[in-house]
Amino acid sequence: MPAILENESPGKQPAVKSQPRAIQIYEAAARVFCENGFGQSSMSDVAAAMNMTKAGVYHHISSKDELLFGIMSYGMDVFEERVLDRVENIRDPLERLRATIRGHLLLVTRNRTKEVTVILNEAHALRGEYRTRIDRRKRRYVRFLNEMFRELQRKGLVREIDPRIATFALLGMINWTYHWYSASGRLRDTDVAETYIDLFLSGLLSHDQAVPGETPHQ
Amino acid sequence: MPAILENESPGKQPAVKSQPRAIQIYEAAARVFCENGFGQSSMSDVAAAMNMTKAGVYHHISSKDELLFGIMSYGMDVFEERVLDRVENIRDPLERLRATIRGHLLLVTRNRTKEVTVILNEAHALRGEYRTRIDRRKRRYVRFLNEMFRELQRKGLVREIDPRIATFALLGMINWTYHWYSASGRLRDTDVAETYIDLFLSGLLSHDQAVPGETPHQ
Repeated sequence: MPAILENESPGKQPAVKSQPRAIQIYEAAARVFCENGFGQSSMSDVAAAMNMTKAGVYHHISSKDELLFGIMSYGMDVFEERVLDRVENIRDPLERLRATIRGHLLLVTRNRTKEVTVILNEAHALRGEYRTRIDRRKRRYVRFLNEMFRELQRKGLVREIDPRIATFALLGMINWTYHWYSASGRLRDTDVAETYIDLFLSGLLSHDQAVPGETPHQ
Repeated sequence: MPAILENESPGKQPAVKSQPRAIQIYEAAARVFCENGFGQSSMSDVAAAMNMTKAGVYHHISSKDELLFGIMSYGMDVFEERVLDRVENIRDPLERLRATIRGHLLLVTRNRTKEVTVILNEAHALRGEYRTRIDRRKRRYVRFLNEMFRELQRKGLVREIDPRIATFALLGMINWTYHWYSASGRLRDTDVAETYIDLFLSGLLSHDQAVPGETPHQ
Protein backbone atom coordinates (compact mmCIF):
# COMPACT_ATOMS: atom_id res chain seq x y z
CA MET A 1 0.00 0.00 0.00
CA PRO A 2 1.40 3.41 -0.95
CA ALA A 3 2.97 5.41 1.84
CA ILE A 4 0.78 8.43 1.27
CA LEU A 5 -2.25 6.57 2.61
CA GLU A 6 -0.48 5.74 5.85
CA ASN A 7 0.22 9.42 6.38
CA GLU A 8 -3.43 10.32 6.13
CA SER A 9 -6.03 10.05 8.80
CA PRO A 10 -9.24 8.35 7.65
CA GLY A 11 -11.68 10.76 6.11
CA LYS A 12 -9.05 13.36 5.35
CA GLN A 13 -8.89 14.42 1.72
CA PRO A 14 -5.63 13.90 -0.15
CA ALA A 15 -3.41 16.95 0.30
CA VAL A 16 -3.32 17.44 -3.48
CA LYS A 17 -7.05 17.79 -3.85
CA SER A 18 -7.31 21.59 -3.86
CA GLN A 19 -4.46 22.11 -6.31
CA PRO A 20 -5.67 22.89 -9.81
CA ARG A 21 -2.79 20.94 -11.38
CA ALA A 22 -3.83 17.76 -9.57
CA ILE A 23 -7.41 18.29 -10.74
CA GLN A 24 -6.18 18.64 -14.32
CA ILE A 25 -4.25 15.41 -13.92
CA TYR A 26 -7.33 13.63 -12.49
CA GLU A 27 -9.45 14.70 -15.45
CA ALA A 28 -6.84 13.75 -18.04
CA ALA A 29 -6.08 10.43 -16.33
CA ALA A 30 -9.79 9.59 -16.11
CA ARG A 31 -10.05 10.04 -19.88
CA VAL A 32 -6.99 7.83 -20.43
CA PHE A 33 -8.35 5.12 -18.09
CA CYS A 34 -11.81 5.24 -19.70
CA GLU A 35 -10.32 4.84 -23.13
CA ASN A 36 -7.71 2.16 -22.47
CA GLY A 37 -8.71 0.61 -19.16
CA PHE A 38 -6.98 1.22 -15.83
CA GLY A 39 -4.79 -1.88 -16.04
CA GLN A 40 -3.60 -1.17 -19.57
CA SER A 41 -2.67 2.45 -18.82
CA SER A 42 0.64 3.63 -17.42
CA MET A 43 1.73 6.80 -15.67
CA SER A 44 3.59 7.56 -18.91
CA ASP A 45 0.27 7.56 -20.79
CA VAL A 46 -1.14 9.98 -18.24
CA ALA A 47 1.93 12.21 -18.51
CA ALA A 48 1.66 12.17 -22.32
CA ALA A 49 -2.01 13.20 -22.14
CA MET A 50 -0.96 16.13 -19.93
CA ASN A 51 2.08 17.11 -22.03
CA MET A 52 4.09 16.59 -18.87
CA THR A 53 7.09 14.47 -18.04
CA LYS A 54 6.50 11.39 -15.93
CA ALA A 55 8.59 13.04 -13.20
CA GLY A 56 6.28 16.04 -13.40
CA VAL A 57 3.24 13.84 -12.77
CA TYR A 58 5.00 12.07 -9.89
CA HIS A 59 5.63 15.47 -8.33
CA HIS A 60 1.87 15.67 -7.75
CA ILE A 61 0.85 12.03 -7.39
CA SER A 62 3.02 9.30 -5.96
CA SER A 63 1.51 6.14 -7.49
CA LYS A 64 -1.10 4.82 -9.91
CA ASP A 65 -3.19 3.55 -6.97
CA GLU A 66 -3.11 6.97 -5.36
CA LEU A 67 -4.06 8.50 -8.70
CA LEU A 68 -7.10 6.25 -9.03
CA PHE A 69 -8.17 7.07 -5.48
CA GLY A 70 -7.64 10.77 -6.18
CA ILE A 71 -9.83 10.60 -9.30
CA MET A 72 -12.60 8.83 -7.39
CA SER A 73 -12.49 11.25 -4.45
CA TYR A 74 -12.70 14.11 -6.91
CA GLY A 75 -15.52 12.28 -8.75
CA MET A 76 -17.47 12.01 -5.51
CA ASP A 77 -16.83 15.72 -4.81
CA VAL A 78 -18.21 16.59 -8.25
CA PHE A 79 -21.21 14.25 -7.91
CA GLU A 80 -22.12 15.52 -4.44
CA GLU A 81 -21.65 19.17 -5.32
CA ARG A 82 -23.53 19.10 -8.63
CA VAL A 83 -26.22 16.51 -7.90
CA LEU A 84 -26.68 15.21 -4.38
CA ASP A 85 -26.22 18.45 -2.42
CA ARG A 86 -28.62 20.22 -4.79
CA VAL A 87 -31.46 17.72 -4.69
CA GLU A 88 -31.49 16.34 -1.17
CA ASN A 89 -33.31 19.33 0.25
CA ILE A 90 -36.10 19.36 -2.32
CA ARG A 91 -39.18 18.99 -0.16
CA ASP A 92 -41.57 17.21 -2.57
CA PRO A 93 -40.19 13.65 -2.83
CA LEU A 94 -41.46 13.09 -6.39
CA GLU A 95 -39.85 16.30 -7.56
CA ARG A 96 -36.70 15.25 -5.66
CA LEU A 97 -36.69 11.94 -7.54
CA ARG A 98 -37.14 13.62 -10.91
CA ALA A 99 -34.36 16.12 -10.19
CA THR A 100 -32.05 13.30 -9.07
CA ILE A 101 -32.56 11.27 -12.25
CA ARG A 102 -32.11 14.38 -14.41
CA GLY A 103 -29.04 15.64 -12.55
CA HIS A 104 -27.28 12.28 -12.35
CA LEU A 105 -27.95 11.38 -15.99
CA LEU A 106 -26.69 14.72 -17.30
CA LEU A 107 -23.54 14.35 -15.21
CA VAL A 108 -22.86 11.08 -17.07
CA THR A 109 -23.61 12.45 -20.55
CA ARG A 110 -21.99 15.86 -20.54
CA ASN A 111 -19.52 17.89 -18.62
CA ARG A 112 -15.78 18.08 -18.67
CA THR A 113 -15.70 15.62 -15.79
CA LYS A 114 -17.89 12.85 -17.19
CA GLU A 115 -15.02 10.34 -17.30
CA VAL A 116 -14.31 11.14 -13.66
CA THR A 117 -17.88 10.09 -12.87
CA VAL A 118 -17.58 6.97 -15.00
CA ILE A 119 -14.38 5.89 -13.23
CA LEU A 120 -16.44 5.64 -10.02
CA ASN A 121 -17.86 2.43 -11.47
CA GLU A 122 -14.38 0.89 -11.37
CA ALA A 123 -14.05 0.97 -7.58
CA HIS A 124 -13.23 -2.76 -7.61
CA ALA A 125 -9.77 -1.76 -8.86
CA LEU A 126 -9.18 0.11 -5.58
CA ARG A 127 -7.63 -1.71 -2.68
CA GLY A 128 -7.82 -1.68 1.10
CA GLU A 129 -8.51 1.59 2.86
CA TYR A 130 -8.84 3.46 -0.44
CA ARG A 131 -11.76 1.27 -1.41
CA THR A 132 -13.37 1.47 2.02
CA ARG A 133 -13.36 5.24 1.86
CA ILE A 134 -14.89 5.50 -1.60
CA ASP A 135 -17.49 2.83 -0.82
CA ARG A 136 -18.49 4.79 2.28
CA ARG A 137 -19.16 7.90 0.23
CA LYS A 138 -21.11 5.91 -2.39
CA ARG A 139 -23.30 4.41 0.30
CA ARG A 140 -24.54 7.89 1.20
CA TYR A 141 -26.15 8.09 -2.26
CA VAL A 142 -27.60 4.58 -2.08
CA ARG A 143 -29.07 5.44 1.34
CA PHE A 144 -30.51 8.69 -0.02
CA LEU A 145 -32.27 6.78 -2.85
CA ASN A 146 -33.52 4.05 -0.51
CA GLU A 147 -34.91 6.58 1.95
CA MET A 148 -36.57 8.57 -0.83
CA PHE A 149 -38.38 5.43 -2.03
CA ARG A 150 -39.46 4.63 1.54
CA GLU A 151 -40.81 8.17 2.00
CA LEU A 152 -42.71 7.92 -1.30
CA GLN A 153 -44.22 4.63 -0.13
CA ARG A 154 -45.23 6.02 3.27
CA LYS A 155 -47.01 8.84 1.45
CA GLY A 156 -48.78 6.36 -0.81
CA LEU A 157 -47.25 7.92 -3.90
CA VAL A 158 -45.47 4.79 -5.15
CA ARG A 159 -46.19 1.10 -5.06
CA GLU A 160 -44.76 -1.40 -2.58
CA ILE A 161 -41.70 -2.24 -4.64
CA ASP A 162 -38.60 -3.28 -2.66
CA PRO A 163 -36.68 0.02 -2.28
CA ARG A 164 -33.32 -1.73 -2.68
CA ILE A 165 -34.34 -3.20 -6.02
CA ALA A 166 -35.80 0.12 -7.18
CA THR A 167 -32.54 1.83 -6.15
CA PHE A 168 -30.29 -0.49 -8.15
CA ALA A 169 -32.64 -0.62 -11.15
CA LEU A 170 -32.42 3.18 -11.31
CA LEU A 171 -28.64 3.27 -10.82
CA GLY A 172 -28.28 0.68 -13.58
CA MET A 173 -30.39 2.65 -16.06
CA ILE A 174 -28.43 5.82 -15.39
CA ASN A 175 -24.88 4.52 -14.98
CA TRP A 176 -25.17 2.32 -18.08
CA THR A 177 -25.69 5.39 -20.23
CA TYR A 178 -21.95 5.86 -20.70
CA HIS A 179 -21.84 2.50 -22.54
CA TRP A 180 -24.17 3.65 -25.29
CA TYR A 181 -24.96 7.37 -25.29
CA SER A 182 -23.09 9.55 -27.75
CA ALA A 183 -23.45 13.33 -27.69
CA SER A 184 -22.96 13.31 -31.48
CA GLY A 185 -25.83 10.83 -32.05
CA ARG A 186 -29.47 11.55 -32.80
CA LEU A 187 -30.75 11.49 -29.21
CA ARG A 188 -30.55 14.56 -26.99
CA ASP A 189 -29.53 13.76 -23.43
CA THR A 190 -32.28 16.00 -22.08
CA ASP A 191 -34.79 13.78 -23.93
CA VAL A 192 -33.15 10.65 -22.53
CA ALA A 193 -33.44 12.16 -19.03
CA GLU A 194 -37.15 12.98 -19.39
CA THR A 195 -37.86 9.56 -20.95
CA TYR A 196 -36.03 7.80 -18.10
CA ILE A 197 -38.08 9.78 -15.57
CA ASP A 198 -41.29 8.88 -17.41
CA LEU A 199 -40.34 5.20 -17.86
CA PHE A 200 -39.19 4.70 -14.28
CA LEU A 201 -42.24 6.40 -12.79
CA SER A 202 -45.00 5.26 -15.15
CA GLY A 203 -43.67 2.11 -16.85
CA LEU A 204 -43.75 1.00 -20.44
CA LEU A 205 -47.30 -0.32 -20.64
CA SER A 206 -50.20 1.62 -22.03
CA HIS A 207 -52.19 2.82 -19.07
CA ASP A 208 -55.18 0.71 -19.98
CA GLN A 209 -52.89 -2.33 -19.82
CA ALA A 210 -51.36 -1.53 -16.44
CA VAL A 211 -54.04 -2.97 -14.23
CA PRO A 212 -52.67 -3.71 -10.75
CA GLY A 213 -52.97 -7.38 -9.90
CA GLU A 214 -52.33 -8.57 -13.43
CA THR A 215 -48.57 -8.70 -13.13
CA PRO A 216 -47.57 -12.36 -12.93
CA HIS A 217 -46.31 -12.45 -9.35
CA GLN A 218 -49.06 -10.53 -7.56
CA MET B 1 -32.54 -22.22 -5.41
CA PRO B 2 -34.29 -23.50 -8.53
CA ALA B 3 -31.94 -24.20 -11.39
CA ILE B 4 -33.90 -22.50 -14.11
CA LEU B 5 -30.99 -22.05 -16.44
CA GLU B 6 -29.58 -25.41 -17.38
CA ASN B 7 -28.25 -27.44 -14.50
CA GLU B 8 -26.33 -24.78 -12.65
CA SER B 9 -26.85 -23.59 -9.12
CA PRO B 10 -24.80 -21.06 -7.16
CA GLY B 11 -21.87 -22.54 -5.30
CA LYS B 12 -21.86 -25.76 -7.28
CA GLN B 13 -18.44 -26.81 -8.52
CA PRO B 14 -18.39 -26.62 -12.29
CA ALA B 15 -18.55 -29.98 -13.99
CA VAL B 16 -15.77 -29.03 -16.34
CA LYS B 17 -14.26 -32.44 -16.94
CA SER B 18 -16.18 -33.20 -20.08
CA GLN B 19 -15.67 -29.78 -21.64
CA PRO B 20 -13.15 -28.85 -24.28
CA ARG B 21 -10.00 -27.48 -22.70
CA ALA B 22 -10.45 -24.09 -24.40
CA ILE B 23 -13.90 -23.64 -22.82
CA GLN B 24 -12.46 -24.44 -19.39
CA ILE B 25 -9.77 -21.83 -19.97
CA TYR B 26 -12.37 -19.24 -21.08
CA GLU B 27 -14.40 -19.73 -17.92
CA ALA B 28 -11.38 -19.62 -15.60
CA ALA B 29 -9.91 -16.60 -17.41
CA ALA B 30 -13.25 -14.75 -17.24
CA ARG B 31 -13.25 -15.20 -13.46
CA VAL B 32 -9.65 -13.93 -13.24
CA PHE B 33 -10.43 -10.89 -15.45
CA CYS B 34 -13.62 -10.07 -13.51
CA GLU B 35 -11.74 -10.19 -10.24
CA ASN B 36 -8.56 -8.31 -11.18
CA GLY B 37 -9.42 -6.47 -14.39
CA PHE B 38 -8.27 -7.48 -17.86
CA GLY B 39 -5.31 -5.09 -17.91
CA GLN B 40 -4.01 -6.17 -14.51
CA SER B 41 -4.20 -9.90 -15.30
CA SER B 42 -1.49 -11.92 -17.02
CA MET B 43 -1.51 -15.23 -18.86
CA SER B 44 0.38 -16.57 -15.81
CA ASP B 45 -2.60 -15.68 -13.61
CA VAL B 46 -4.88 -17.56 -16.01
CA ALA B 47 -2.54 -20.56 -16.02
CA ALA B 48 -2.41 -20.54 -12.20
CA ALA B 49 -6.21 -20.51 -12.00
CA MET B 50 -6.24 -23.57 -14.28
CA ASN B 51 -3.39 -25.40 -12.52
CA MET B 52 -1.63 -25.37 -15.87
CA THR B 53 1.73 -24.13 -17.01
CA LYS B 54 1.82 -20.95 -19.07
CA ALA B 55 3.08 -23.05 -21.99
CA GLY B 56 0.09 -25.32 -21.54
CA VAL B 57 -2.28 -22.34 -21.86
CA TYR B 58 -0.40 -21.06 -24.92
CA HIS B 59 -0.88 -24.47 -26.51
CA HIS B 60 -4.60 -23.63 -26.71
CA ILE B 61 -4.63 -19.84 -26.99
CA SER B 62 -1.98 -17.76 -28.70
CA SER B 63 -2.37 -14.34 -27.06
CA LYS B 64 -4.24 -12.42 -24.38
CA ASP B 65 -6.18 -10.57 -27.08
CA GLU B 66 -7.23 -13.85 -28.67
CA LEU B 67 -8.20 -15.12 -25.22
CA LEU B 68 -10.46 -12.12 -24.60
CA PHE B 69 -12.07 -12.55 -28.02
CA GLY B 70 -12.52 -16.28 -27.32
CA ILE B 71 -14.24 -15.55 -24.00
CA MET B 72 -16.58 -13.05 -25.64
CA SER B 73 -17.46 -15.34 -28.55
CA TYR B 74 -18.19 -18.08 -26.06
CA GLY B 75 -20.21 -15.58 -23.95
CA MET B 76 -22.31 -14.72 -27.00
CA ASP B 77 -22.82 -18.46 -27.71
CA VAL B 78 -24.04 -18.96 -24.13
CA PHE B 79 -26.28 -15.89 -24.21
CA GLU B 80 -27.85 -16.78 -27.56
CA GLU B 81 -28.33 -20.45 -26.69
CA ARG B 82 -29.78 -19.93 -23.21
CA VAL B 83 -31.69 -16.67 -23.68
CA LEU B 84 -32.13 -15.23 -27.16
CA ASP B 85 -32.79 -18.44 -29.12
CA ARG B 86 -35.34 -19.50 -26.49
CA VAL B 87 -37.36 -16.31 -26.35
CA GLU B 88 -37.37 -14.94 -29.87
CA ASN B 89 -40.08 -17.29 -31.07
CA ILE B 90 -42.50 -16.57 -28.23
CA ARG B 91 -45.56 -15.33 -30.07
CA ASP B 92 -47.10 -13.01 -27.45
CA PRO B 93 -44.79 -9.97 -27.38
CA LEU B 94 -45.50 -9.12 -23.74
CA GLU B 95 -44.70 -12.67 -22.68
CA ARG B 96 -41.61 -12.51 -24.91
CA LEU B 97 -40.48 -9.35 -23.09
CA ARG B 98 -41.04 -10.89 -19.66
CA ALA B 99 -39.15 -14.06 -20.63
CA THR B 100 -36.28 -11.98 -22.01
CA ILE B 101 -35.89 -9.93 -18.82
CA ARG B 102 -36.10 -13.07 -16.65
CA GLY B 103 -33.69 -15.11 -18.78
CA HIS B 104 -31.10 -12.37 -19.22
CA LEU B 105 -31.13 -11.37 -15.56
CA LEU B 106 -30.70 -14.94 -14.32
CA LEU B 107 -27.80 -15.42 -16.71
CA VAL B 108 -26.07 -12.50 -14.98
CA THR B 109 -26.80 -13.64 -11.42
CA ARG B 110 -26.14 -17.36 -11.53
CA ASN B 111 -24.56 -20.01 -13.64
CA ARG B 112 -21.04 -21.24 -14.01
CA THR B 113 -20.60 -18.86 -16.92
CA LYS B 114 -21.79 -15.62 -15.35
CA GLU B 115 -18.33 -14.00 -15.54
CA VAL B 116 -18.25 -14.90 -19.22
CA THR B 117 -21.44 -12.88 -19.65
CA VAL B 118 -20.09 -10.00 -17.59
CA ILE B 119 -16.90 -9.81 -19.67
CA LEU B 120 -19.12 -8.94 -22.66
CA ASN B 121 -19.45 -5.49 -21.10
CA GLU B 122 -15.70 -4.97 -21.57
CA ALA B 123 -15.79 -5.07 -25.37
CA HIS B 124 -13.97 -1.72 -25.47
CA ALA B 125 -10.82 -3.68 -24.56
CA LEU B 126 -11.09 -5.57 -27.87
CA ARG B 127 -9.38 -4.21 -30.95
CA GLY B 128 -9.94 -4.14 -34.70
CA GLU B 129 -11.69 -7.07 -36.33
CA TYR B 130 -12.21 -8.83 -32.97
CA ARG B 131 -14.28 -5.91 -31.74
CA THR B 132 -16.22 -5.60 -35.02
CA ARG B 133 -17.26 -9.25 -34.83
CA ILE B 134 -18.45 -9.12 -31.21
CA ASP B 135 -20.25 -5.81 -31.76
CA ARG B 136 -22.08 -7.35 -34.74
CA ARG B 137 -23.39 -10.19 -32.57
CA LYS B 138 -24.44 -7.80 -29.81
CA ARG B 139 -26.38 -5.70 -32.30
CA ARG B 140 -28.61 -8.69 -33.02
CA TYR B 141 -29.86 -8.49 -29.43
CA VAL B 142 -30.29 -4.72 -29.52
CA ARG B 143 -32.28 -5.08 -32.76
CA PHE B 144 -34.42 -7.83 -31.22
CA LEU B 145 -35.30 -5.56 -28.27
CA ASN B 146 -35.97 -2.56 -30.52
CA GLU B 147 -38.24 -4.57 -32.78
CA MET B 148 -40.11 -6.06 -29.83
CA PHE B 149 -40.85 -2.57 -28.50
CA ARG B 150 -42.02 -1.44 -31.95
CA GLU B 151 -44.33 -4.44 -32.23
CA LEU B 152 -45.74 -3.73 -28.75
CA GLN B 153 -46.39 -0.13 -29.82
CA ARG B 154 -48.10 -1.15 -33.08
CA LYS B 155 -50.40 -3.38 -31.05
CA GLY B 156 -51.18 -0.52 -28.65
CA LEU B 157 -49.82 -2.49 -25.72
CA VAL B 158 -47.14 -0.01 -24.71
CA ARG B 159 -46.81 3.74 -24.77
CA GLU B 160 -45.02 5.79 -27.41
CA ILE B 161 -41.64 5.71 -25.70
CA ASP B 162 -38.59 5.86 -27.98
CA PRO B 163 -37.71 2.16 -28.50
CA ARG B 164 -33.97 2.91 -28.46
CA ILE B 165 -34.21 4.57 -25.06
CA ALA B 166 -36.39 1.76 -23.71
CA THR B 167 -33.86 -0.78 -25.03
CA PHE B 168 -30.88 0.80 -23.30
CA ALA B 169 -32.79 1.54 -20.10
CA LEU B 170 -33.61 -2.17 -19.90
CA LEU B 171 -30.08 -3.30 -20.75
CA GLY B 172 -28.74 -0.96 -18.07
CA MET B 173 -31.06 -2.30 -15.37
CA ILE B 174 -30.12 -5.88 -16.19
CA ASN B 175 -26.41 -5.61 -16.96
CA TRP B 176 -25.77 -3.47 -13.90
CA THR B 177 -26.89 -6.30 -11.64
CA TYR B 178 -23.40 -7.78 -11.54
CA HIS B 179 -22.19 -4.62 -9.78
CA TRP B 180 -24.45 -5.10 -6.78
CA TYR B 181 -26.22 -8.46 -6.64
CA SER B 182 -24.79 -11.13 -4.37
CA ALA B 183 -26.19 -14.66 -4.33
CA SER B 184 -25.35 -14.83 -0.62
CA GLY B 185 -27.33 -11.66 0.19
CA ARG B 186 -30.94 -11.33 1.31
CA LEU B 187 -32.52 -10.86 -2.11
CA ARG B 188 -33.41 -13.84 -4.30
CA ASP B 189 -32.56 -13.31 -7.95
CA THR B 190 -35.95 -14.68 -9.00
CA ASP B 191 -37.56 -11.87 -6.94
CA VAL B 192 -35.25 -9.32 -8.55
CA ALA B 193 -36.30 -10.63 -11.98
CA GLU B 194 -40.04 -10.39 -11.25
CA THR B 195 -39.62 -6.94 -9.68
CA TYR B 196 -37.66 -5.73 -12.72
CA ILE B 197 -40.43 -7.01 -15.00
CA ASP B 198 -43.06 -5.28 -12.87
CA LEU B 199 -41.10 -2.03 -12.56
CA PHE B 200 -40.21 -1.82 -16.24
CA LEU B 201 -43.75 -2.58 -17.40
CA SER B 202 -45.83 -0.75 -14.80
CA GLY B 203 -43.53 1.88 -13.28
CA LEU B 204 -42.95 2.93 -9.71
CA LEU B 205 -45.97 5.20 -9.20
CA SER B 206 -49.11 4.16 -7.44
CA HIS B 207 -51.75 3.61 -10.05
CA ASP B 208 -53.99 6.32 -8.62
CA GLN B 209 -51.19 8.81 -9.37
CA ALA B 210 -52.46 8.85 -12.93
CA VAL B 211 -50.55 10.94 -15.40
CA PRO B 212 -52.60 14.11 -15.96
CA GLY B 213 -54.66 13.85 -19.12
CA GLU B 214 -54.68 10.05 -19.19
CA THR B 215 -57.79 8.05 -18.47
CA PRO B 216 -57.68 6.56 -14.99
CA HIS B 217 -58.18 2.83 -14.98
CA GLN B 218 -59.75 0.39 -12.50
